[in-house]
Amino acid sequence: MKALVLEEKLKLSLRDFPLKETLGPRDLRIALRTVGVCGSDVHYYTHGAIGPFVVREPMILGHEAAGVVVETGAEVTEFKPGDRVCMEPGIPDPNSRATRLGLYNLDPAVRFWATPPVHGVLRPTVVHPADFTFKLPDNVSFAAGAMVEPLAVGVHAATKARVKPGDIAVVTGAGPIGLVTVLAALAAGCARVIVSDVDEAKLDIASRLGPVTPVNVRSENLADRVKRETDGWGADIVFECSGNERAAAEVFDPLCPGGTVVFVGIPLSPIAYDVSAAQIKEARIENVFRYAHVFPRCVAMLASSAIDVSPLITKTFSFEESVEAFEFAAEAPRGQVKVQIEMPA
Amino acid sequence: MKALVLEEKLKLSLRDFPLKETLGPRDLRIALRTVGVCGSDVHYYTHGAIGPFVVREPMILGHEAAGVVVETGAEVTEFKPGDRVCMEPGIPDPNSRATRLGLYNLDPAVRFWATPPVHGVLRPTVVHPADFTFKLPDNVSFAAGAMVEPLAVGVHAATKARVKPGDIAVVTGAGPIGLVTVLAALAAGCARVIVSDVDEAKLDIASRLGPVTPVNVRSENLADRVKRETDGWGADIVFECSGNERAAAEVFDPLCPGGTVVFVGIPLSPIAYDVSAAQIKEARIENVFRYAHVFPRCVAMLASSAIDVSPLITKTFSFEESVEAFEFAAEAPRGQVKVQIEMPA
Amino acid sequence: MKALVLEEKLKLSLRDFPLKETLGPRDLRIALRTVGVCGSDVHYYTHGAIGPFVVREPMILGHEAAGVVVETGAEVTEFKPGDRVCMEPGIPDPNSRATRLGLYNLDPAVRFWATPPVHGVLRPTVVHPADFTFKLPDNVSFAAGAMVEPLAVGVHAATKARVKPGDIAVVTGAGPIGLVTVLAALAAGCARVIVSDVDEAKLDIASRLGPVTPVNVRSENLADRVKRETDGWGADIVFECSGNERAAAEVFDPLCPGGTVVFVGIPLSPIAYDVSAAQIKEARIENVFRYAHVFPRCVAMLASSAIDVSPLITKTFSFEESVEAFEFAAEAPRGQVKVQIEMPA
Amino acid sequence: MKALVLEEKLKLSLRDFPLKETLGPRDLRIALRTVGVCGSDVHYYTHGAIGPFVVREPMILGHEAAGVVVETGAEVTEFKPGDRVCMEPGIPDPNSRATRLGLYNLDPAVRFWATPPVHGVLRPTVVHPADFTFKLPDNVSFAAGAMVEPLAVGVHAATKARVKPGDIAVVTGAGPIGLVTVLAALAAGCARVIVSDVDEAKLDIASRLGPVTPVNVRSENLADRVKRETDGWGADIVFECSGNERAAAEVFDPLCPGGTVVFVGIPLSPIAYDVSAAQIKEARIENVFRYAHVFPRCVAMLASSAIDVSPLITKTFSFEESVEAFEFAAEAPRGQVKVQIEMPA
Repeated sequence: MKALVLEEKLKLSLRDFPLKETLGPRDLRIALRTVGVCGSDVHYYTHGAIGPFVVREPMILGHEAAGVVVETGAEVTEFKPGDRVCMEPGIPDPNSRATRLGLYNLDPAVRFWATPPVHGVLRPTVVHPADFTFKLPDNVSFAAGAMVEPLAVGVHAATKARVKPGDIAVVTGAGPIGLVTVLAALAAGCARVIVSDVDEAKLDIASRLGPVTPVNVRSENLADRVKRETDGWGADIVFECSGNERAAAEVFDPLCPGGTVVFVGIPLSPIAYDVSAAQIKEARIENVFRYAHVFPRCVAMLASSAIDVSPLITKTFSFEESVEAFEFAAEAPRGQVKVQIEMPA
Repeated sequence: MKALVLEEKLKLSLRDFPLKETLGPRDLRIALRTVGVCGSDVHYYTHGAIGPFVVREPMILGHEAAGVVVETGAEVTEFKPGDRVCMEPGIPDPNSRATRLGLYNLDPAVRFWATPPVHGVLRPTVVHPADFTFKLPDNVSFAAGAMVEPLAVGVHAATKARVKPGDIAVVTGAGPIGLVTVLAALAAGCARVIVSDVDEAKLDIASRLGPVTPVNVRSENLADRVKRETDGWGADIVFECSGNERAAAEVFDPLCPGGTVVFVGIPLSPIAYDVSAAQIKEARIENVFRYAHVFPRCVAMLASSAIDVSPLITKTFSFEESVEAFEFAAEAPRGQVKVQIEMPA
Repeated sequence: MKALVLEEKLKLSLRDFPLKETLGPRDLRIALRTVGVCGSDVHYYTHGAIGPFVVREPMILGHEAAGVVVETGAEVTEFKPGDRVCMEPGIPDPNSRATRLGLYNLDPAVRFWATPPVHGVLRPTVVHPADFTFKLPDNVSFAAGAMVEPLAVGVHAATKARVKPGDIAVVTGAGPIGLVTVLAALAAGCARVIVSDVDEAKLDIASRLGPVTPVNVRSENLADRVKRETDGWGADIVFECSGNERAAAEVFDPLCPGGTVVFVGIPLSPIAYDVSAAQIKEARIENVFRYAHVFPRCVAMLASSAIDVSPLITKTFSFEESVEAFEFAAEAPRGQVKVQIEMPA
Repeated sequence: MKALVLEEKLKLSLRDFPLKETLGPRDLRIALRTVGVCGSDVHYYTHGAIGPFVVREPMILGHEAAGVVVETGAEVTEFKPGDRVCMEPGIPDPNSRATRLGLYNLDPAVRFWATPPVHGVLRPTVVHPADFTFKLPDNVSFAAGAMVEPLAVGVHAATKARVKPGDIAVVTGAGPIGLVTVLAALAAGCARVIVSDVDEAKLDIASRLGPVTPVNVRSENLADRVKRETDGWGADIVFECSGNERAAAEVFDPLCPGGTVVFVGIPLSPIAYDVSAAQIKEARIENVFRYAHVFPRCVAMLASSAIDVSPLITKTFSFEESVEAFEFAAEAPRGQVKVQIEMPA
């Protein structure tokens, strides 16, 4: 099949790739329709690795995907060919202790698309378990369906934060993950989200997502602004989405007594964590990893318009232009959030 | 001062009423601007009592209120004359065990407006503690401010439910409390709310509040419909807002495994509770009473447009027309939700 | 194999029973050593049915069991022949939605020992999944191991109650389930448990389990006593373990504001539930069904002596005396809690 | 009155100290009977300051106290002279936002004994609010009553950890706070506590408190040992009680997926916090500060023998020997945990 293959660092080909996939009894064969380009895809392209995960053999990229069921396994009753779907890219071991406890995202044996040595889905079809595939209602486009994966990160973060209606949240970092977290935090009950970044273009996009207060931390102190917006009390929740060590070290400054911090971004090195600053506010910290059990929730919120992801889809390429799409995404032009690739129908 | 006085059952007068209130050091004197008419006010008017609370002496009605600060106590620094505010009508004993635990709504010593023998606020001014008074931003009208009290019931219910983003909720009963619960459930993260009632006019209003599915239980079985809307799984949360014994007995039918029931409505007699039906789904039940700590949250959500209460304000009378307003509310015309009274500025 | 067979209502035989069990790759074959007699086993014996579960064919009884591994499936690495173990008697569908959420006890497809048409384990060997089998340390006897199943009910109830250290709990009903709940509540952090029953012999056993206050509700009002023991505040948690409709209807009387009720017992008919009594205290209700994820926790607490179940094992019979054991249990002599049957080694 | 006065750093006098205290309507006058010596008292003695709190004027030391009521304020009905009591040393502003939310320990205006400029209680009597005074039952000695304050730190930590019955916990650091946390963790439901320290004498004391596994981290790797004790899964909870920056940085190593870390100890400098290590396990972190609402719970557990603090009281001095007591405590002899001072009756 024709696929977008990362041959090695900085070398992408759109070429025929030999891949045979057998359909198990609980599997679906799915024709891809829209695939989003994630920062991790781009990072494999530009660096050839993410931490311990090194691309040693040619690997197909792409893990944010929506498509159409074309074939169903012998025991599948809940799907039929023609169903429009989106897919959860990580498949855990169903018998692991973490999975049985309901924490399948923490199963070390999880197999995740476009994470070496597992291939991604920038290709015509993929075989995937029915249990990790979710129907899209008619009013959810393939483009929106392919946004469920990144949105799930934000929704999982908001779920673990246990947002209460009327909370004031801070989101540090207005990149793609910061922005889906803004959407999720607002949908989850926040009255207002204060977003910080150093990039005015990103803050502009954030400002259009709802009751959002942008703070450019080049020119303004975040904690001071939050205090001013909250009568000196502080924010109920701080979602750290920048992955920046310094921003992550300062999360307790804008926080209210009894508040919650969620570490969503992944700083490269350990951060300086001021235990006594956290204690004096009895901060609760949630450290989140991907997501679990939230795909159907995301689809439901897209279907009901509780969440609208369309402002985040800023550029679309055809499958034939895939390499160009990655070059574009790697340049990270101002004002760009999510690049998607449309597969031939 | 001139006040709307319930002289006795079914006898209201708008008349001069002798009432002197001293301003304590932590108190405010507030000029009333908008006062909503609550079902409980109407019930005192039509029945002269609610359960053990009997109107034995003339009592001023009204407890849903917004106004303007006209005088501040000696130790008050956070308010000044001219501040636009709304007020929490129940004042607990600050030293009670419940209050110190943060559960002030459960303090049996709470003094609540328009609950005998405590007067309500259909009158020019009231003295009220600063700690139970909340500033209204410029973009929140007095009419919306007077809706904070009923809205708080819904927001408290949604808070206790611990809504997760993407939940599907059922609200049984589309009266005023059902409708504020719909608003709160949607704001709190529900992807969709399924509302049941027997009155098509009320269901129509509910349908205009967001992603709401109305179910007229005269012609359709609620549990069947919920199953159909949720692939057979059931709703994550059932808010019982009808106060109807039969509806309250059937809350487990539409519920999903591991789901939550919130009893908001107050049935007059004990309901038939099927323990084994609740057990087989391990239902969690929250029984809620008024609200605690949610007024500032409600104001923040009105200010940011996370919640819009204006569709619920269906009729406004002047203070001079107060008696007429109560007669109108007592008739409960179809399509009416909240009647408010505007006080002279 | 020789087994204790319920031929039909009131007719038990210890006889040869044809049963061939294939060992799957993730299965163990286990030789039974100790099997407890549960109230449900006795109920099938005396009534031939429990609710919708009717014994239509001869069925082997027994589901509280400990034994020794004698054979392991091809893919099992964590057990070896000779391992001493106890077993969880319910096996869910691993692919059900409830199971994947971690709520496997709520999976309607669960297959549970000695629940028609699934055979129990009063027989020499059983084939069982390794994932639902748990090793017993040397210091936990087979008799204690066979108590893990009933103990798990109490530990699950205490877990769902979210006991806080220093809580005061009430347990209504001092039968086997009430007593394991007493043990679990104390182990889970309760400072004291107040136990109610009408049977002085059962209350005597309860009193020997730790800091327990027995209340004979024939002669004393439970709520009055609880108020007296708690300076008028009430108990933090009420575990309803009697299954008695009247006791279940009165759970809110001894409860403190903000307290928790756990329905463990299963009343035969719906109870009268006073919503407004529950609301005025904002009671949280947990309705529990069997248990999930607690077997290894129970084993750990037995191993460390955090819990001692030995006072509850009041009578032991040999396998040859199985029919007599059931007749004895069916008579429910005073002072008897748990009857066990020792299998030949 | 005669009091133990810290004149300045390293200079203690037992001398007459002029101090007049008026009895407010909700106050008690209490004669002290036993006062414990806390590490913070010793630190003020040896350093003259703790962080921003500097002893600038002579200050009476001591804040762990039990005594007898000698006089009651006009509005106090729940106490009478002769009542044996223990006292919570921090008094918050009842009107602060934190206090009203039930988080009074986070109120920045809290006045805490023996924290400059507030005097401690190594003196004959003190005036204290009834709301922060708790009766001791006859079977709780003054010595045990004076242990309630440090015990409260452990019980609060265990409460915030939300221990589930059968959890395996790690406590890093076997000093006084580590040891009360061990007691609290066991009482709160842990099946076993693994305690780490470098001091064999402290580990010996820990080992005598219940099902405790001591690990001397001089000779053994903590995470390896925990993995071995938990079949490779890790501990459910890690209580960091050492205040050591390196130990605090390593808390995620022995933790299980989905586990909880509680920072109880207060490292002097920020620690290196590995966000991605925390994320891969989705660790929840609770940062605790003193305690709130737990004194009556501690008294109840001492009264019922759910917790026995007597092994921690290793040395007792008379009031006349107070200076010697502090010199002894400052030397921190091996095997010493808690030094107490008995006041003349």
